[in-house]
Amino acid sequence: MRLAITADLAWHCQEPTDILLQIEAAASSDQRVLSSALDCTSAGHLARVPAQDGIGERIWLHQEGDFAVSYRAEVEVLRRAEPLETLAAVPPHRLPGETVAYLMDSHYCPASRFVPFADEEFAAVEGGARVVAMRDWIARHFRYVPGASNASTTAIDSFVERRGVCRDYAHVLICLARAAAIPARFSSGYGHAVKPQDFHALAEVWLADAAGKGAWRVVDATGMATAEDFARIAVGRDAADTSFLTSFGEAELRSLAITVRTV
Amino acid sequence: MRLAITADLAWHCQEPTDILLQIEAAASSDQRVLSSALDCTSAGHLARVPAQDGIGERIWLHQEGDFAVSYRAEVEVLRRAEPLETLAAVPPHRLPGETVAYLMDSHYCPASRFVPFADEEFAAVEGGARVVAMRDWIARHFRYVPGASNASTTAIDSFVERRGVCRDYAHVLICLARAAAIPARFSSGYGHAVKPQDFHALAEVWLADAAGKGAWRVVDATGMATAEDFARIAVGRDAADTSFLTSFGEAELRSLAITVRTV
Amino acid sequence: MRLAITADLAWHCQEPTDILLQIEAAASSDQRVLSSALDCTSAGHLARVPAQDGIGERIWLHQEGDFAVSYRAEVEVLRRAEPLETLAAVPPHRLPGETVAYLMDSHYCPASRFVPFADEEFAAVEGGARVVAMRDWIARHFRYVPGASNASTTAIDSFVERRGVCRDYAHVLICLARAAAIPARFSSGYGHAVKPQDFHALAEVWLADAAGKGAWRVVDATGMATAEDFARIAVGRDAADTSFLTSFGEAELRSLAITVRTV
Amino acid sequence: MRLAITADLAWHCQEPTDILLQIEAAASSDQRVLSSALDCTSAGHLARVPAQDGIGERIWLHQEGDFAVSYRAEVEVLRRAEPLETLAAVPPHRLPGETVAYLMDSHYCPASRFVPFADEEFAAVEGGARVVAMRDWIARHFRYVPGASNASTTAIDSFVERRGVCRDYAHVLICLARAAAIPARFSSGYGHAVKPQDFHALAEVWLADAAGKGAWRVVDATGMATAEDFARIAVGRDAADTSFLTSFGEAELRSLAITVRTV
Repeated sequence: MRLAITADLAWHCQEPTDILLQIEAAASSDQRVLSSALDCTSAGHLARVPAQDGIGERIWLHQEGDFAVSYRAEVEVLRRAEPLETLAAVPPHRLPGETVAYLMDSHYCPASRFVPFADEEFAAVEGGARVVAMRDWIARHFRYVPGASNASTTAIDSFVERRGVCRDYAHVLICLARAAAIPARFSSGYGHAVKPQDFHALAEVWLADAAGKGAWRVVDATGMATAEDFARIAVGRDAADTSFLTSFGEAELRSLAITVRTV
Repeated sequence: MRLAITADLAWHCQEPTDILLQIEAAASSDQRVLSSALDCTSAGHLARVPAQDGIGERIWLHQEGDFAVSYRAEVEVLRRAEPLETLAAVPPHRLPGETVAYLMDSHYCPASRFVPFADEEFAAVEGGARVVAMRDWIARHFRYVPGASNASTTAIDSFVERRGVCRDYAHVLICLARAAAIPARFSSGYGHAVKPQDFHALAEVWLADAAGKGAWRVVDATGMATAEDFARIAVGRDAADTSFLTSFGEAELRSLAITVRTV
Repeated sequence: MRLAITADLAWHCQEPTDILLQIEAAASSDQRVLSSALDCTSAGHLARVPAQDGIGERIWLHQEGDFAVSYRAEVEVLRRAEPLETLAAVPPHRLPGETVAYLMDSHYCPASRFVPFADEEFAAVEGGARVVAMRDWIARHFRYVPGASNASTTAIDSFVERRGVCRDYAHVLICLARAAAIPARFSSGYGHAVKPQDFHALAEVWLADAAGKGAWRVVDATGMATAEDFARIAVGRDAADTSFLTSFGEAELRSLAITVRTV
Repeated sequence: MRLAITADLAWHCQEPTDILLQIEAAASSDQRVLSSALDCTSAGHLARVPAQDGIGERIWLHQEGDFAVSYRAEVEVLRRAEPLETLAAVPPHRLPGETVAYLMDSHYCPASRFVPFADEEFAAVEGGARVVAMRDWIARHFRYVPGASNASTTAIDSFVERRGVCRDYAHVLICLARAAAIPARFSSGYGHAVKPQDFHALAEVWLADAAGKGAWRVVDATGMATAEDFARIAVGRDAADTSFLTSFGEAELRSLAITVRTV
């Protein structure tokens, strides 16, 4: 599927401030960036560094006063949707090194706390079918409430309050998967069916196909995106790694507008 | 400095269990592993995978019943102690990509919560001198109390209780450094002056020398290790990444003995 | 129902220590203390003060070294079991003053966090039937696991882990009731069917009968006690108020034995 | 000292909602209410119930739509300022029953977590002098920042962030006092020197005079009120008990204006 993405952000920094930006769709084997442009409306230091796991780039800015960024891209998503139910969990002792960090407790995802619940509630199924059961449990029990969470809301909070936005759905799903010893990472990006249009987030889990080959597979407990229509920006352990704008000092977001269309 | 290390662990798993082990000193540019042997007293699956940031290896085990591991190594630490006070902080927008994750909040190190305190208490100094002031503040205000913390103790807990063991000292120092926008990571390892002898942990911070070259520098708020006598096992965002034994299922540690001598 | 209770506790204080004891069944309109004896095996200051809400007494001790207490009592429980389903919630603005504190968040019962869940899950029923639905939800989803919780376990923890002992069941039920604006308090006591025999705890909720008369009604999500066979020791906002032994300084519990028989 | 108080609140409830109001200065032995008027601008159920510890009253409202309350009072504060340093702590085992609840952990004041810090930092002094040392430590290390805290901010949060408003200063002081086995309660009220003018809060601690007579004594770590110019509204374990407006359902505060003058 081909997506046309626009993202327009404006913010203000009273003083010279360091800003970390993660808003560009990442070029990778499962999505091709056909075109991409990032325009800044005023001067400032700008540097690109590789992002987490070598997927995409982070942009360092150093600026003062008003700043606006306009991002335009066309991305072809090459991922095929696979029925997760047919995939198997990889026994931990067979997991490759790069997945191990995604078994651990992270800031928003204290996964080990969820072991008793994950063990009891999802005992009947294994592997990909277990992840599907977890995804469906969240979809059934949670309410999507814009504004229900903030930067301090963890998966524990969301699990108790049973509501949140895409980041919260992803955090809880990541906790449940890790609690079952299935590596799970947080993935930020764009989806054309996300309502209201905004940055999106979902979980990726490490599962193996019939040939035993492990790979990251997209799972969205909100149901708003699929493997085929999600353009990934960045991955991380949770939202702390993939925020679209992290400021080191005060920054006031003044506007944010996203559009994603299929083309 | 040359260190002779022995580590003997024994544990028991009622059922077949996956175990992740991180106990071997890592071969790297700042420490040379002169000899190394890992003996297992009983059979079981054993696989090595690269650990965090490509530093050292994690060992996956799959076994049942009693298991014991005996590790013997001789390591030459090549690191030179540098006066941290002479080093500079790298402005965030000049930081290389691999350090960025170490600015973020992590499970045991919710660093952003410490920004007001770090700003107020250590405002008078910059860069390496600031890290030294943070280290000394912890050393002055904390009490080293074996058993005071457990697997759920975060840097917030330690900061409130002002006591802990090496992991807790490291967690608080990491929070303070990150709160000042200085990348800080957790480093587990061996030190010959650690009393009682056990695995050790400390912080590493990213600072630049006079030529502007950034590198990770060892800082130990407990005062029990220095750059010159610390043999690193693994690095991570905090203790969640570097535990010497992580089990996926029940495992009961039955004995643990560490010795570290200078040779 | 008539209960014969024995409670034997022994502990040790290295230094002169203040101890607060709450182990005696309270004399009140819904239970008659037929006989009661408290023997201390060694000397020390002992003073009685009225406990929370004037129900029962707290005992202050000041002692050093070994101390043992032996409590023997016979209690007639006068409470009749009422079908909670027939009782009504009192609208908050009609609640008497002494119940208001039991609507608030307390240490182990941060009830306001449970409002979205309580609203969604139990929307179909009102009043006593709602409390029954909450009790049954906990009974259905939780596992009774001795040792699963400790002094720092809150209702949030228990809700996430879905397991615990009587105090944890009571804490979660109290949160759910308060979240629905039904006053709920913690009640410690004795029950003959408690297995393994130990101090017990349950919730009391404020509901009104057909004549509109409000009163505290016993609800036990563990199913181990009923209104008719529960001998109350003390009430409070949560377990923090009703601990059987609170020490101001170090005290090491050396033995604890409870028996409760019907006579 | 004589205070003239005005408090004007307006709020809106979309649906019929229960509201608990605590805004009137309490009549008690240490302050005389010379005149008092509470005007409501629209109709609704209004009932008064005794508040915590029998100090003052809570007002239950049940209303819909816009509501405004105007409170006017003149209060004579009879309390004399006593040098706290001359007062003694009452040994726990001599404490009267009504003070015991104020030794316990409460929602915003998990006091037991502060025991190691309280023990170490304030070991040199006892009794009232210890409370003064605690008050001065907070005054020295905290910054008064309106807006720095919200309804979920606990004393742990404030202690880590070292900033807050009057409620946060009071919460931390209460924790430190309780950690030293000195009963401490939260007291809301009015003070003429509070800047900006708003509801105020401070701690009250139970200390004994030279004759051994225990009583609650006012301590304000913000320094904005004294025993002689503070008109108490209500007491409780922490801010959860004394909120000026608690709504059971949605209520939107639209305006709030307080004035306090000496007359």
